[in-house]
Amino acid sequence: MPKKSAYDDVTAFAPATVANVAIGFDILGHTVEAVGDRVRIKRIEAPEVRICSITGVAGELPVEPERNTAGRAVQAMHQALKLPYGFELSIDKGIPLSSGMGGSAASAVAAVVAANALLAEPLTRLQLLQYAIQGEIIASGAVHVDNIAPSLFGGLVLTVGIDHPRVKQIPVPKSVRCVLVHPHMQLATREARAILKAHVTRSDFVWQTANLAGFISGCYSNDLDMIRESFDDVVIEPQRQSMIPGFGEVKQAAMAAGALGCSISGAGPTIFAWAETHRTVAVQAGMVAAFRAHGLDSDAWISVIENDGARIVNP
Amino acid sequence: MPKKSAYDDVTAFAPATVANVAIGFDILGHTVEAVGDRVRIKRIEAPEVRICSITGVAGELPVEPERNTAGRAVQAMHQALKLPYGFELSIDKGIPLSSGMGGSAASAVAAVVAANALLAEPLTRLQLLQYAIQGEIIASGAVHVDNIAPSLFGGLVLTVGIDHPRVKQIPVPKSVRCVLVHPHMQLATREARAILKAHVTRSDFVWQTANLAGFISGCYSNDLDMIRESFDDVVIEPQRQSMIPGFGEVKQAAMAAGALGCSISGAGPTIFAWAETHRTVAVQAGMVAAFRAHGLDSDAWISVIENDGARIVNP
Repeated sequence: MPKKSAYDDVTAFAPATVANVAIGFDILGHTVEAVGDRVRIKRIEAPEVRICSITGVAGELPVEPERNTAGRAVQAMHQALKLPYGFELSIDKGIPLSSGMGGSAASAVAAVVAANALLAEPLTRLQLLQYAIQGEIIASGAVHVDNIAPSLFGGLVLTVGIDHPRVKQIPVPKSVRCVLVHPHMQLATREARAILKAHVTRSDFVWQTANLAGFISGCYSNDLDMIRESFDDVVIEPQRQSMIPGFGEVKQAAMAAGALGCSISGAGPTIFAWAETHRTVAVQAGMVAAFRAHGLDSDAWISVIENDGARIVNP
Repeated sequence: MPKKSAYDDVTAFAPATVANVAIGFDILGHTVEAVGDRVRIKRIEAPEVRICSITGVAGELPVEPERNTAGRAVQAMHQALKLPYGFELSIDKGIPLSSGMGGSAASAVAAVVAANALLAEPLTRLQLLQYAIQGEIIASGAVHVDNIAPSLFGGLVLTVGIDHPRVKQIPVPKSVRCVLVHPHMQLATREARAILKAHVTRSDFVWQTANLAGFISGCYSNDLDMIRESFDDVVIEPQRQSMIPGFGEVKQAAMAAGALGCSISGAGPTIFAWAETHRTVAVQAGMVAAFRAHGLDSDAWISVIENDGARIVNP
């Protein structure tokens, strides 16, 4: 049984994430350092997991631990470790609900990172990943780790496999930033998943794999031209884009302002672009204006991509 | 119009290639330095392309230039450049026919490289690629460049696009060699292509893209564990393996001897494996023995993967 740490009360931050990153459906994701969720966990005597408050851009999140992504993740960890004491969670949401910015993953990740800090024998990040997945399943109805893994590890992250996941951090060219624009509407991940076709044509398969390989190769070799030319999702984006009013115009505005690429963040409706530092302000302005022309206000962030992932912020 | 070079007679060598490399169907290929084709080209007065001899493991290759991959490639180049003189080709085949080792590509590549050396204003490799493609179409019935590009550029090569192909050389860990085993049977690329399904399930698509991304990432970061775990073709190999007697046993023998991975070279029947240097002899022996148990003799090579691609060997 794990021992207690010196602390009884820890707060962790986990960043928002862009899943899929255009060409890596269900396998790639990257952090957006500028925004995230915080979870404070207190040790309590009763051997159970409770949620005492949800603040921030919380909307209508369930407070029953087994229905809440952070609660469920810590429950899974608590059960597996057979702890004789319990945890009380306070969740502070910085990531809008159903925005496609990995909010459910960030809450689950911040929760397990905070809970782990209360143990004197910390679990590895790969072990924490498994518990966080239990939370994510509640939100999306499917097991996928392309939000959780980057939120936990930081940066651009490839994840392969579920039962024994391999996690690989991929370098991002230093001059590249992410522009994230969240229109004021919601899209449920379950719905965005349900509309996807069960098959991919062999031709689209080859094209998408070429773009994926080019993109990763471009990241490793700091080849912005290759990244720009590979940044094209021919499989998922065409199926989902009609769910986001103005998607075509927003993307066009980003590209016209010099973005390297632009696509849907996770299941949407948030749209992200990659751009060199000196283009980011123009890219963001173009995307926000294009949404506004479709009657949608939005929040927008410009952020570095690489960071250390979820971390303890207090004490 | 290009000027003549100082030479009237040039011989070029182009290496054999492993297309697909398990997880990069139609987009990845790598050279096998140990074996290849040679094409000697003489300038002749008549403004036409002729083939005067085909030697080596030639089988029944057509000598009409428009039906021969090397002839057709040089014809395409000759026509585009509107040359007032002609070329006479002597083709020396080192690569067995219909073996899945990129023989048609190597002949086309050696031919355009040799012809280019006879011009005083050499074309770029990307331009040569376009002419070599014209030859490859004759052999395979489809436009694909995953044999031509590596044979021309050398090493492990990613190619994206046909009309404006992007070519990217990907580093291969220094300790890795390719074991290539060619059983004495033939498989026509057209047939091996015809049996492929027109669709890929979304689940296989995700799995294959994860493996592709892991493989490329492993190559860039010298991560042999990642290469080993990603070296698994879940889309094409299951559809083609029944065309190769003993495939399962040959692969099993390679893996039991410590290979990083093993799959079909191009459309087969040649099977390739990647292995660390000190494993190669055992891997090769196991693969050859497994084919023999199925009544098939074979030729086998152990080769470095990275090289400079097609080159002039004489004068």
